[in-house]
Amino acid sequence: MIKTGIIGSTGYAGEFLVRILASHPEAELTYVASAHASGKDISDVLPSLKGMAQCILLSEDPEAAADACDVVFMAKKSAESMKYAPLLLEKGVKVIDIGGEFRLRDAGEYEKWYGTAHLCPELLRDAVYGMCELNRDSIRNAQLLSNPGCYPTASILALDPLVKAYGKDILSINISASSGISGAGRTALSSGSNLFVNCFNSHSAYKAGTHKHTPEIEQALGRNVTFIPQLASMDRGILAVSCLNLREGALPQTDPADVLEQAYGEEPFIRLQPAAEQVTASGVRGTNFIDLHAVFIERTGTVLAVSAIDNLVKGASGQAVQNMNIMFGLEETMGLYGESF
Amino acid sequence: MIKTGIIGSTGYAGEFLVRILASHPEAELTYVASAHASGKDISDVLPSLKGMAQCILLSEDPEAAADACDVVFMAKKSAESMKYAPLLLEKGVKVIDIGGEFRLRDAGEYEKWYGTAHLCPELLRDAVYGMCELNRDSIRNAQLLSNPGCYPTASILALDPLVKAYGKDILSINISASSGISGAGRTALSSGSNLFVNCFNSHSAYKAGTHKHTPEIEQALGRNVTFIPQLASMDRGILAVSCLNLREGALPQTDPADVLEQAYGEEPFIRLQPAAEQVTASGVRGTNFIDLHAVFIERTGTVLAVSAIDNLVKGASGQAVQNMNIMFGLEETMGLYGESF
Amino acid sequence: MIKTGIIGSTGYAGEFLVRILASHPEAELTYVASAHASGKDISDVLPSLKGMAQCILLSEDPEAAADACDVVFMAKKSAESMKYAPLLLEKGVKVIDIGGEFRLRDAGEYEKWYGTAHLCPELLRDAVYGMCELNRDSIRNAQLLSNPGCYPTASILALDPLVKAYGKDILSINISASSGISGAGRTALSSGSNLFVNCFNSHSAYKAGTHKHTPEIEQALGRNVTFIPQLASMDRGILAVSCLNLREGALPQTDPADVLEQAYGEEPFIRLQPAAEQVTASGVRGTNFIDLHAVFIERTGTVLAVSAIDNLVKGASGQAVQNMNIMFGLEETMGLYGESF
Amino acid sequence: MIKTGIIGSTGYAGEFLVRILASHPEAELTYVASAHASGKDISDVLPSLKGMAQCILLSEDPEAAADACDVVFMAKKSAESMKYAPLLLEKGVKVIDIGGEFRLRDAGEYEKWYGTAHLCPELLRDAVYGMCELNRDSIRNAQLLSNPGCYPTASILALDPLVKAYGKDILSINISASSGISGAGRTALSSGSNLFVNCFNSHSAYKAGTHKHTPEIEQALGRNVTFIPQLASMDRGILAVSCLNLREGALPQTDPADVLEQAYGEEPFIRLQPAAEQVTASGVRGTNFIDLHAVFIERTGTVLAVSAIDNLVKGASGQAVQNMNIMFGLEETMGLYGESF
Repeated sequence: MIKTGIIGSTGYAGEFLVRILASHPEAELTYVASAHASGKDISDVLPSLKGMAQCILLSEDPEAAADACDVVFMAKKSAESMKYAPLLLEKGVKVIDIGGEFRLRDAGEYEKWYGTAHLCPELLRDAVYGMCELNRDSIRNAQLLSNPGCYPTASILALDPLVKAYGKDILSINISASSGISGAGRTALSSGSNLFVNCFNSHSAYKAGTHKHTPEIEQALGRNVTFIPQLASMDRGILAVSCLNLREGALPQTDPADVLEQAYGEEPFIRLQPAAEQVTASGVRGTNFIDLHAVFIERTGTVLAVSAIDNLVKGASGQAVQNMNIMFGLEETMGLYGESF
Repeated sequence: MIKTGIIGSTGYAGEFLVRILASHPEAELTYVASAHASGKDISDVLPSLKGMAQCILLSEDPEAAADACDVVFMAKKSAESMKYAPLLLEKGVKVIDIGGEFRLRDAGEYEKWYGTAHLCPELLRDAVYGMCELNRDSIRNAQLLSNPGCYPTASILALDPLVKAYGKDILSINISASSGISGAGRTALSSGSNLFVNCFNSHSAYKAGTHKHTPEIEQALGRNVTFIPQLASMDRGILAVSCLNLREGALPQTDPADVLEQAYGEEPFIRLQPAAEQVTASGVRGTNFIDLHAVFIERTGTVLAVSAIDNLVKGASGQAVQNMNIMFGLEETMGLYGESF
Repeated sequence: MIKTGIIGSTGYAGEFLVRILASHPEAELTYVASAHASGKDISDVLPSLKGMAQCILLSEDPEAAADACDVVFMAKKSAESMKYAPLLLEKGVKVIDIGGEFRLRDAGEYEKWYGTAHLCPELLRDAVYGMCELNRDSIRNAQLLSNPGCYPTASILALDPLVKAYGKDILSINISASSGISGAGRTALSSGSNLFVNCFNSHSAYKAGTHKHTPEIEQALGRNVTFIPQLASMDRGILAVSCLNLREGALPQTDPADVLEQAYGEEPFIRLQPAAEQVTASGVRGTNFIDLHAVFIERTGTVLAVSAIDNLVKGASGQAVQNMNIMFGLEETMGLYGESF
Repeated sequence: MIKTGIIGSTGYAGEFLVRILASHPEAELTYVASAHASGKDISDVLPSLKGMAQCILLSEDPEAAADACDVVFMAKKSAESMKYAPLLLEKGVKVIDIGGEFRLRDAGEYEKWYGTAHLCPELLRDAVYGMCELNRDSIRNAQLLSNPGCYPTASILALDPLVKAYGKDILSINISASSGISGAGRTALSSGSNLFVNCFNSHSAYKAGTHKHTPEIEQALGRNVTFIPQLASMDRGILAVSCLNLREGALPQTDPADVLEQAYGEEPFIRLQPAAEQVTASGVRGTNFIDLHAVFIERTGTVLAVSAIDNLVKGASGQAVQNMNIMFGLEETMGLYGESF
């Protein structure tokens, strides 16, 4: 049994890690910490976990985590991940960071988009970007695994094969992605933008062109993208609509659907749906699937890709466990396949 | 008092026409017809109208409508509008068609996108496209007024000044527009796509590149657009996110916000919001406003416009009454301004 | 024109007062204050008011309010209403309190349910409870008008005639009322219970038997009630389901529907719907209507009443303006009838 | 491996049976039929099942079902269950009926509430009512198992111990239960009451006092109840609020929370939550749990019970598999515990 730990267990990513790991056949939870709720039973903090998982929340202590675990999931958004990671790695523990501090390879880019200097830039080069379907070989040997962001997961998996296929003809890429409100995290934002009345029955764009997931997508694709994230009246799920605008007169030699089929035909968590209408946020809810469809709109010379994930599963905790499975030589779908969360 | 009639009064457009006209200071409802519910009290069919409007629904009869009215609103999606219009016009009655049969000037384009031949192509040339803020002079003298579609209203008002300002530098236009489910009309669709469970807490694209509002937008802008409509988990409202991708190195001489200010600074129903985050579907609900924001994303050379309307008001019945006000020389905001529906 | 002021204008009640009063034919807004946003343009704080109302928010100052107004609406939940009211009344200004501090006649009851001592108990006796349809004569001469709570409005209007008709046979009253989340106010609650993810697609009971609207309902009906408020996945609206359980064998002499018809047949804002299914939260949205239906379930000896209001209109600001109309001798429906907010 | 079949596999109950049984360690799906979609791949009909379950849908044929299965789940609402059941039982196959045709023991009651005569009344006496936690011993030997309705599951599990504890003092029982729209089934209703726009952001009562789940609850409790079902703006989930009104002056000798603890302390699928606020529809979503809380409101002499289930899992398919586990001597939680659907 793999001994697993979670630092930051009462946010959404942490909660879903607990749910998934609690029934994972080859993992056991040996260290579950929360800065805000240490000493409490986890089911008092998260009543929906009652009967699924039971433990007393510990305080955050990387030393104790290292002693108790083979792998530690960092499920915090704050800079603390940057402080804990070196300590854990030094002790030989594998680290899977969901918080997003190790995704960009360049410390300057990090500072520019995240608005703060990186605390351990020396780790950035060795951190492995855990987009499982594109990067398995490196993931197998990762010590520090950087779990992809939710929007990047939906965008990169859809676009990577298409950019490779049509690269030289692409003039611009526009990604319009609608996300459920859980993407904002569990705490009330000072802007009030995750209050019920402010986002229910509404739809709005935010951080257009400036969202910090933009450079993550660009780094993976090797292309600039105009990324327009949007808040949708959903609790979970992302639907990304991506337009690859080709130069005038360009004609794809391979149909986009075939490009995806060749790239992903055997992937257990990628479902190629036969129509854009069948790629829906609710259709992947509670699963580690990404649903995809792509088509060439000849009239305007645009390759369109539509993709859907559950931001809390494939876009966070599910993919993190998929990465753990790869890192520890387990069957990649273990604890994730055929079930839902 | 202007004598007004509605053919198709129990769909959403008809219902909202009744609501608006019932309290309009210079209009009276003299003919309210429904093919499916004639003979019934309208508040038995639409309980929420009780106490707001009272009438017995009539059967659809263009002769009777012509006798009773100065202007008839056609609020049906079916081809019947095409049959009724010539009769009404012949009798000297003004016609405002919300159903969408007279928006394209070219009968061939109509057949291509609507999938059926036009029944009175001779009327297409004289039909006036009622995008109020762009077309007031023609509207004043219109006999047959074609009320714009909901998506085109949100898209064209946002893009018209920007296309005029940056036209020669624009390489491609991508419009990603999320709509509430009332856009699908009041009747159950055979696809089930307007059933609660199928669209609640979800988001999906449909008819990407093939939606019949595409040529309407292109006709107005004089440019091809890639238009990707989406179903959002809302009952009403449209948020359109439009990307104008400029040729490499192009730099707008005038800021997009200033372009909109110059075009629309005095418009009573166009609100230029200072940030994209303040353009929301819920912020215009129940009003005839369109909220707009535009910005240049220099890094990728893209002009972004975000626009929001209530599809049932500015995107249908509200704009239709605004058109009526213009056609009859009334104050343009009468019955529409400062109130909500 | 009546000079009106609002203290607490950026909460929901304040916002809707601004909306209604801005288009009221006989009222003008002469004093609009906000403790948190003084000095700002109201449309910067509430973007959806742009183009509807324009003013610079003032700081809260009862002296200035008194100088500027004939009537001041207190739209704050905090104890400050209790401090401001005596000052305003002394200056001869009428006060309409929406905050709820003057609804209970007994200061001891107030302290018991509100958890704090009343600051001006001497005013409680003279405060008039503004349930318009039940209390018009007293309202006409009110100086201090206490606007009813949202749940009490939905409950008392439904139950008052039924309790009068069946009083001696009623053994118990159970009120199960589901409310939209705006009932919790605009600020993030420390419990997180008005965060989107916590209440979307859910339903839950809260403060069962201990909610402070309970004594307000009981005071009006002269009966104890078991009141179970519930949070529903809506932004606005209340649906109250009330069961009056009669003693075994009791048979109502008058049908409940007839009781309501006799009590309310001529009321402009009370709509008696012919079936319980037609009483819906969405059917009254944006209006000052209350929809009602009542029926006797003979099998169990229970009189059932179902009622629906928009908590922000009839349950708060709309009713407050209705009260103002009565207090100033205006037509009761002025600015409220046939429109929606 | 238990060979399992489903008749009616494309409704909600059928879909969730497929989901659960596809990953059940001791069950295999050997017969999956659909009257409307036979011959199609199930993932073409239900795209969200892609990658979870694969089969070609068969036509409905009880003979073939009997040959292929040890147990057949009847997941249809129509009368066909009544026709198929005798055939299957005759062939020695166990039948679990989710459709609801065998829940009432009395054929006359069935006809009265269901509006049609029962086709095989002789089976009613032997059908076992599968409320697992209350009826395990009979379930073990059942040939024809009648799976409880969704509302009755939420109501009866909450009320059974309380009615037993306080029975002689109870004067009336009012159950107010709010359900997600999936309770209406997958097909568009002629009333339109499961269309998105009609139920989104709304709440309404329906079939008050006349819903056919009423006699099912009464049969189990041995008491009359006033049952008021309500449509909530949710896709799944039921929250039931039950008031047991005691005779004046009655004082429970055992606290309601203790009564529940004694009855259910060891039950794996019943979670006693420490506060009513922690019993929420979303908290049990995707699980086979029922969450419960009960309290005595002394002021009015009412015992209040609040209960929540997922209507598609514990209220239908999950409980059906729980029953199957009991009937076949498997661990009761197998395939159901610690996971979610």
